[in-house]
Amino acid sequence: MTDFDLIYLDNAATTKPYDEVIERYVECQKAYFNPSALYKQAVDGASAIKNAKKTILKALHAPEGDTLYFTSGGTESDNWAIFATKKAKGSRIIVGEGEHDAVVNPAKELQMQGFDMCFAPINPDGSINVEEFSKLVTPDVSFVSIMHVSNETGAINDIAKLVKIVKSKAPKAIFHSDGVQAFGKTKVNLRTLGVDLYSISAHKIHGLKGIGALYVKKGTSIKPLLYGGGQESGMRSGTENMPMICAFEEAVKQNQVNFEENYSKKSRFMEHFKQKLLAVLPDTTVISPAENGVPNILTVAFETIRGEVLLHSLEKHGILVGIGSACSSHHESRFKKLLNLDEMHRDGIVRFSIGNFNDINEVDFVVDKIAEEMKTLKEYARK
Amino acid sequence: MTDFDLIYLDNAATTKPYDEVIERYVECQKAYFNPSALYKQAVDGASAIKNAKKTILKALHAPEGDTLYFTSGGTESDNWAIFATKKAKGSRIIVGEGEHDAVVNPAKELQMQGFDMCFAPINPDGSINVEEFSKLVTPDVSFVSIMHVSNETGAINDIAKLVKIVKSKAPKAIFHSDGVQAFGKTKVNLRTLGVDLYSISAHKIHGLKGIGALYVKKGTSIKPLLYGGGQESGMRSGTENMPMICAFEEAVKQNQVNFEENYSKKSRFMEHFKQKLLAVLPDTTVISPAENGVPNILTVAFETIRGEVLLHSLEKHGILVGIGSACSSHHESRFKKLLNLDEMHRDGIVRFSIGNFNDINEVDFVVDKIAEEMKTLKEYARK
Repeated sequence: MTDFDLIYLDNAATTKPYDEVIERYVECQKAYFNPSALYKQAVDGASAIKNAKKTILKALHAPEGDTLYFTSGGTESDNWAIFATKKAKGSRIIVGEGEHDAVVNPAKELQMQGFDMCFAPINPDGSINVEEFSKLVTPDVSFVSIMHVSNETGAINDIAKLVKIVKSKAPKAIFHSDGVQAFGKTKVNLRTLGVDLYSISAHKIHGLKGIGALYVKKGTSIKPLLYGGGQESGMRSGTENMPMICAFEEAVKQNQVNFEENYSKKSRFMEHFKQKLLAVLPDTTVISPAENGVPNILTVAFETIRGEVLLHSLEKHGILVGIGSACSSHHESRFKKLLNLDEMHRDGIVRFSIGNFNDINEVDFVVDKIAEEMKTLKEYARK
Repeated sequence: MTDFDLIYLDNAATTKPYDEVIERYVECQKAYFNPSALYKQAVDGASAIKNAKKTILKALHAPEGDTLYFTSGGTESDNWAIFATKKAKGSRIIVGEGEHDAVVNPAKELQMQGFDMCFAPINPDGSINVEEFSKLVTPDVSFVSIMHVSNETGAINDIAKLVKIVKSKAPKAIFHSDGVQAFGKTKVNLRTLGVDLYSISAHKIHGLKGIGALYVKKGTSIKPLLYGGGQESGMRSGTENMPMICAFEEAVKQNQVNFEENYSKKSRFMEHFKQKLLAVLPDTTVISPAENGVPNILTVAFETIRGEVLLHSLEKHGILVGIGSACSSHHESRFKKLLNLDEMHRDGIVRFSIGNFNDINEVDFVVDKIAEEMKTLKEYARK
């Protein structure tokens, strides 16, 4: 009954892996050896890991001498940055209030341990309020974590500016940025950003789940989170997952191919989608920023209707959308409360997020179905 | 030049995945959705995870009501057990001195935090010295970690007995066992073992790297190690890796098929190998236990020759062996020092470990090549 088998608009939650990524992963399984063993087959695996690391550091435009360590994903990278960095007892920690739970919840643990944890307020579009942030930066700040791109709205934070503010007042503070929604979606240049730590993840960029990395600027005081066999120069123990790491490298490479083309494709998709949606449903509030956002996320608040209800209505038509961070979809969203939406829109948040496989042809069908379902739902609500 | 392309005798380091495991993994990639999302495709993924959990708990003969949480592997499971369990400040922690570094190194961190960490001595075959262990158990013991099977020698510890000793003197102590080298290799019955926590890993049983689990007995005081989106009932955050979890389930299933047959196949292989090796090279010291060991590991100490040198000599013939834990192969082995071998054998440790894909036909070729290379190496040494 639908023109499309499936229209997947929840790419901020996770993405479909590139065929090339899966192929590379399977191919690498032939070299199943433990990269820490001493025979050639193992040493070749260790070299492949080294090369993957180089590719990814280059894609991040990381300064010479900096490195990254592979982790099991964004959550581990964020936890590692927050828990294992050097911080004076009781010192101040600043975390954006719109951060992903993988940052907020570890930070709350630190708060319970006696750190002076402050939430930096966000603007209505999900970006950090720079002025308010600035006020929180005192000389005893030891650690800051501000996401590069909001997973909820796609807002891009001016990380370079925030780093400068922090380093000018607290030169020894460590600046971490969760780049999970930025890397592969917008240009990331770590040389310009100037962060000390940066988290990335493969499955948000058409790679596989279960692999991420933490970039570490040379000289950053960080201990391991996991101890053991001493892999990754002692910084991240556990048998090195060569096939997964090479698949991550492949995802990064594939994202670089046609990056510009995919970027404008996504921009055109979202622009058309937004305009059409607002034309058909003018009472919809756009939460995502008009400017300074990634083109792949559009978060809106529909009037009167609950996001979850619309999600299930669209599902019937093969259209899959999110209602904010997938992680928090089973419990009351913390983020929702931050937005100060009026009563008519408060429960109507829906996040549309696209990837490299979406096509502008999907837009009309999606908006038609939204309009159709909204009409039915509103009529039903009136009864 | 060789009769075999490759004879892989380092299965304790890692194993070749079953074809069925890779196929299941690839198949699951079609359902790339985030299992925490709300639409049917995601919910199906969450169900698949639940089923995998059931399969694995059943394979472990876990008591009703107990559970397990998926992790990135054995190292994370061990670290989690050690770092996140409830322990009174300064209380006693007992760890086997032959434990894997993924246990020893986190335990050393606790020691630095002021815990009274004791190493339980091992016998010359790598098993725990029960009498000495018993002496260490005081009423203020809060945590014990003893591996089920030694990764270095294959010795099986009588975990049920050790648990009883601990619980009789320190009823509230938490008993963790690293079962990474036991699960899938020998029968594991958690009902009989009585442990509170048990670590397992997929890639040691012809599964994929990057997935493991921590079994947690109902009522065990353990907090999360990674905080975030609240996946795995809040106990292990991070996007659930459904394809990897299902591939783990597949590895467990495949290991159960023909378990008995594979077990005797491995026993016959190792018996033949050991007898032939000792017949040809009678000066070789067998480190692995004569009884109470898994059939898949045989660790010996060759006379005069360095294990690493023999490893590289055998490599030329397509024979891959280990010289103890792969993780520690790049630095001086801690384990070696524990064995009190005489000077002639001290550096000659080689670990032969087989899996379900090894065949008894490989034995003669391997022993011939060992004898040949030993002869050459000894002659060279004499010059």
